[in-house]
Amino acid sequence: MLKITMAQMEVIPGHPDKNAATMLRMIKQAKEEQSAVIIFPEMAIPGYLLGDTWEQTSFLADCEHYGQEIIAAAQGITVMFGNIAMDWDKTNNDGRVRKYNAFFTAQDGRLITPAGQDYPYVIKTLMPNYREFDDTRHFYSLQQLALEQGKSPADLIAPVHITIEGREYRVGCLLCEDGWSDNYALEPFEVLREGGTIDFFVNISASPYTLGKNGKRNRVFGEQAQRAGKPLFYVNAIGLQNNGKTVYTFDGASTAYNGKGMVCAMSQEYQEELTSVNLDELSTLPSLPEDSEPDIAHIYRALNYGVRRFLENIHMKKVVIGISGGIDSAVAAALYAKIVGPENLLLVNMPSVFNSATTKGLSKQLADNLGCQYAVVPIQHSVDHTVEQLSTTPITYLTDGSTQNLTVSSFVTENIQARDRSARVLAGAAAAFGGGFTCNANKAETTVGYSTLYGDQSGFLAALADLWKHQVYALAHYMNDVIYGREVVPQGIIDIVPSAELSSAQNVDEGKGDPIKYPYHDHLFRSFIERWQKAAPEDILEWYATGTLEENLGCEAGLVAKYFPTAQEFIADLERWWNLFTGMAVAKRIQAPPILAISRRAYGFDHREAQNGPYYTLKYRQLKERLLQA
Amino acid sequence: MLKITMAQMEVIPGHPDKNAATMLRMIKQAKEEQSAVIIFPEMAIPGYLLGDTWEQTSFLADCEHYGQEIIAAAQGITVMFGNIAMDWDKTNNDGRVRKYNAFFTAQDGRLITPAGQDYPYVIKTLMPNYREFDDTRHFYSLQQLALEQGKSPADLIAPVHITIEGREYRVGCLLCEDGWSDNYALEPFEVLREGGTIDFFVNISASPYTLGKNGKRNRVFGEQAQRAGKPLFYVNAIGLQNNGKTVYTFDGASTAYNGKGMVCAMSQEYQEELTSVNLDELSTLPSLPEDSEPDIAHIYRALNYGVRRFLENIHMKKVVIGISGGIDSAVAAALYAKIVGPENLLLVNMPSVFNSATTKGLSKQLADNLGCQYAVVPIQHSVDHTVEQLSTTPITYLTDGSTQNLTVSSFVTENIQARDRSARVLAGAAAAFGGGFTCNANKAETTVGYSTLYGDQSGFLAALADLWKHQVYALAHYMNDVIYGREVVPQGIIDIVPSAELSSAQNVDEGKGDPIKYPYHDHLFRSFIERWQKAAPEDILEWYATGTLEENLGCEAGLVAKYFPTAQEFIADLERWWNLFTGMAVAKRIQAPPILAISRRAYGFDHREAQNGPYYTLKYRQLKERLLQA
Repeated sequence: MLKITMAQMEVIPGHPDKNAATMLRMIKQAKEEQSAVIIFPEMAIPGYLLGDTWEQTSFLADCEHYGQEIIAAAQGITVMFGNIAMDWDKTNNDGRVRKYNAFFTAQDGRLITPAGQDYPYVIKTLMPNYREFDDTRHFYSLQQLALEQGKSPADLIAPVHITIEGREYRVGCLLCEDGWSDNYALEPFEVLREGGTIDFFVNISASPYTLGKNGKRNRVFGEQAQRAGKPLFYVNAIGLQNNGKTVYTFDGASTAYNGKGMVCAMSQEYQEELTSVNLDELSTLPSLPEDSEPDIAHIYRALNYGVRRFLENIHMKKVVIGISGGIDSAVAAALYAKIVGPENLLLVNMPSVFNSATTKGLSKQLADNLGCQYAVVPIQHSVDHTVEQLSTTPITYLTDGSTQNLTVSSFVTENIQARDRSARVLAGAAAAFGGGFTCNANKAETTVGYSTLYGDQSGFLAALADLWKHQVYALAHYMNDVIYGREVVPQGIIDIVPSAELSSAQNVDEGKGDPIKYPYHDHLFRSFIERWQKAAPEDILEWYATGTLEENLGCEAGLVAKYFPTAQEFIADLERWWNLFTGMAVAKRIQAPPILAISRRAYGFDHREAQNGPYYTLKYRQLKERLLQA
Repeated sequence: MLKITMAQMEVIPGHPDKNAATMLRMIKQAKEEQSAVIIFPEMAIPGYLLGDTWEQTSFLADCEHYGQEIIAAAQGITVMFGNIAMDWDKTNNDGRVRKYNAFFTAQDGRLITPAGQDYPYVIKTLMPNYREFDDTRHFYSLQQLALEQGKSPADLIAPVHITIEGREYRVGCLLCEDGWSDNYALEPFEVLREGGTIDFFVNISASPYTLGKNGKRNRVFGEQAQRAGKPLFYVNAIGLQNNGKTVYTFDGASTAYNGKGMVCAMSQEYQEELTSVNLDELSTLPSLPEDSEPDIAHIYRALNYGVRRFLENIHMKKVVIGISGGIDSAVAAALYAKIVGPENLLLVNMPSVFNSATTKGLSKQLADNLGCQYAVVPIQHSVDHTVEQLSTTPITYLTDGSTQNLTVSSFVTENIQARDRSARVLAGAAAAFGGGFTCNANKAETTVGYSTLYGDQSGFLAALADLWKHQVYALAHYMNDVIYGREVVPQGIIDIVPSAELSSAQNVDEGKGDPIKYPYHDHLFRSFIERWQKAAPEDILEWYATGTLEENLGCEAGLVAKYFPTAQEFIADLERWWNLFTGMAVAKRIQAPPILAISRRAYGFDHREAQNGPYYTLKYRQLKERLLQA
């Protein structure tokens, strides 16, 4: 009977002292529960997303110190954990001290060296460098080490032999990406499997939540276990980590797969817990039922956990939200109310002359439904003052003494309103209320910069900026139906046309609103950012020309012909948004708040920006010409 | 006589059509000048810093198409250039289509395959992943290719043999980092040199300007040429490229080194030009004089070029600057006036009751000196209105109907002023004036977030945010003395105590100002960010305890004892700023404008952020305890 414990801990990035304390507590508990082996996640001590904190020597030495505390605590139990491993006499390729992303196994206060190897730990072989990952910036991989030593990388991949109560177990130790090797020339799992001696595999991970990933992981890791005919333990962290601009929840979901590839045990998502299984019983355990929850339930859970932990991290207990009577701010209000409580949530409606009685009423109705703090702060006086001050203050050209006055156009006034709301009212109210104010932008707006910088683009966190508009609506329904069990987001807000209400051209009572046609543009924009090989106008136009656009975008059939009767209109629309997406929207996203990631491609660090302006390929220009002549 | 032309072109990132047009024009000119070989920079066609545009398949195919145009144009001249090379049937490690950062050599409309190799181009071997570089995210390296093919990487490194007028030349082709191999296990230059057959080396680069880098490059590349006893041609791009948050100038400075390692020819910095040399004459050419300009001249040139090109890229012709009578905004005004001209520069002074007659007068004096557009827009009325509106608007707790009012503290009012200036006045004025407004923050402020978000932290570009305060002063002197040749930045602005003037506690006439003691903190903060192994409180405190702090920081001796008579005061100051640097300042930098880089470590993409809160190592805490008990 070998009792193995998956220690799904919360890893607090950049705080090795706290993480080591958690680990010591869990080791103690696992020993009390007669566990023989306890497994912690990848980078359990330092955390994983640390930015360039990896360049602070004193921090690295500190992680090493806490690692030694964990090794010393491995008495009467075998402890497996991830930490940074230092090779102080060598350098990385950047000239900085050598760092490995490493998997440690400790017994009787000492490390166990992988069979036949020099280093007393397993070094990560595959270094992800896509999406939010930046491994090669900081860590020296096993492949580089092999090159340095003039060896084949496979020669450096070896099992760890642990002896428990007189029996030897050979463990295949993997670090996260080592198990996702589809596209790599070297597959660490296969090297270990082909060795033919492994008793069980352990994959320690620091794997952020992504919608749909756990299902994929069960297929990939289940197949691995099945192929080897041996159990595999996947141990992931929970918590919140970020690389500044993009914030990731870590959902845990640590899983034990038996030798048939079945999911036999799983830790609860986002819960710190020890999940133990007996190795010998794994093959006879029933498979857990497959996940049957809708996507929106997963999204809500990630958002709720992410926002809660983000607020705790920055010690923010009170939140201010500007509510317009539209869907985004309403959903944000319903989300935050569950987290900080209605007494700590201040909703502020800030009407100008362009705001309808309809949306003002809906705002109040939303606030009533939530029972939170509520205020109405009109902005017209301030906006009028700004317009008047700007247009009447003389500007003197000091070279010749001539003076002029500025002309404030209606477009300029639209943005003055938006900034007045956020940078004047909300920022001031939040500071006085003792909290922060939110950015309620969705992903479609973020894609094309349909927002005002220092206006509705601002806030301490953009919790909904990785949700397309249709997902925001789905979240409204889900919260009403499941989370609150009553109509919190008023049906009127769900039904009303989305509008910024910044001018009479956006009058909701006349059905006028945003220029974004969400049922189509949600999907068009998604193809720009979320496709693995990103779509650009050339792809879109080719699909349009061949009649496969809706199918390729995944939007409703017939929409394109309905919105754009002619090729000319279609192309004008495409270029309008592409120019914004790769133009002004880049400038806005550079200064946008952190975004909570849920999709497989969030804005921020996940999608690297460059303010290079729009570009159209030669093939696009040729196809466009052909279509316009037709 | 082999005439070799270094084609120092401006590479426009993300615009292969424009770059190809430049190259075709230069090829034509070089042929007219009887050049036998023309060499373009690394990634001459796509550009180098493109963010995730590398994931757009249609863009990649477009670059390939324009590359073929260049190859076709290689008639009567040998053309060497950098471009992305596609291997459409293979994938990168991320599953996306295979991309190499490649060096092409074309003759008679065809590519020349490196001796004994499969691919008709040289593939970059070393992939930088520090600072702004992100090569492994996008490009498959020669090392990975060797692993895939089961070969040694050195087997794939081979010279390119070109035949000109019946004579064969063997060229050692390198891409940028391939020549900076100090810390790598594999050194491409050495592999080629040890082959013993090379006639000359060519290093094509996309190397951003960094203060002091060209001197270092002359040492490193000069030594290489000398060691090989063969000439080396370094060809770099000019232009402006960015990865969103950090903006880099490319200074060119393409250089020909002869076999003695001497600098024999150099293209002018930031100038598009063809520089030709005869290979046979190189050994007899005199060495160019060493650079004798002061650092600040280089900095000014980089800033002037960078701001100019940034404005051109975003099609901005007019600029608004809020001037306070302090040094940062004055230097920004003097810098921008040279670029947009005084008629397109609007300086706005925005006094509140806390602004002194002194700084108001100095602001006017600055504007007079520049002869630009000038306006005074007082903010007191608007600030009073905001404070009044926030403190009198009732907030209703809708659960029980109780109401309360917010209290607006003096600290909250300080930030209301800062936001009123930027988000209300400057943003509105800039939109009405038809331009943008600048962020004038320096690097010390940026380090600790001594600024207001949506206030003085905002703007379209932070041109001075990579300059320490003492560099801002040096720039003021340099512009007065050299660029303008008269006192443009008034001496009063240089002499006055730096102050935000947001409260009576910051009264400049009483000598009160910023809490940052620049002569010390400039250097302390620099150690947090610019040291290759970043300093953290543990290092600082150890240096303090051993009396080596000033020496390690590079600041004036005696300053520490002067500012901090006791260890307690020293530690309180250290923790105050460290808490900000790793706390609130991170949140502010995430939403800061793009920063123009000049140092070897700029904020933005160059320094990766994570909003993880302050941390102190165990050793720090122990040393602190010891010092406080002493």
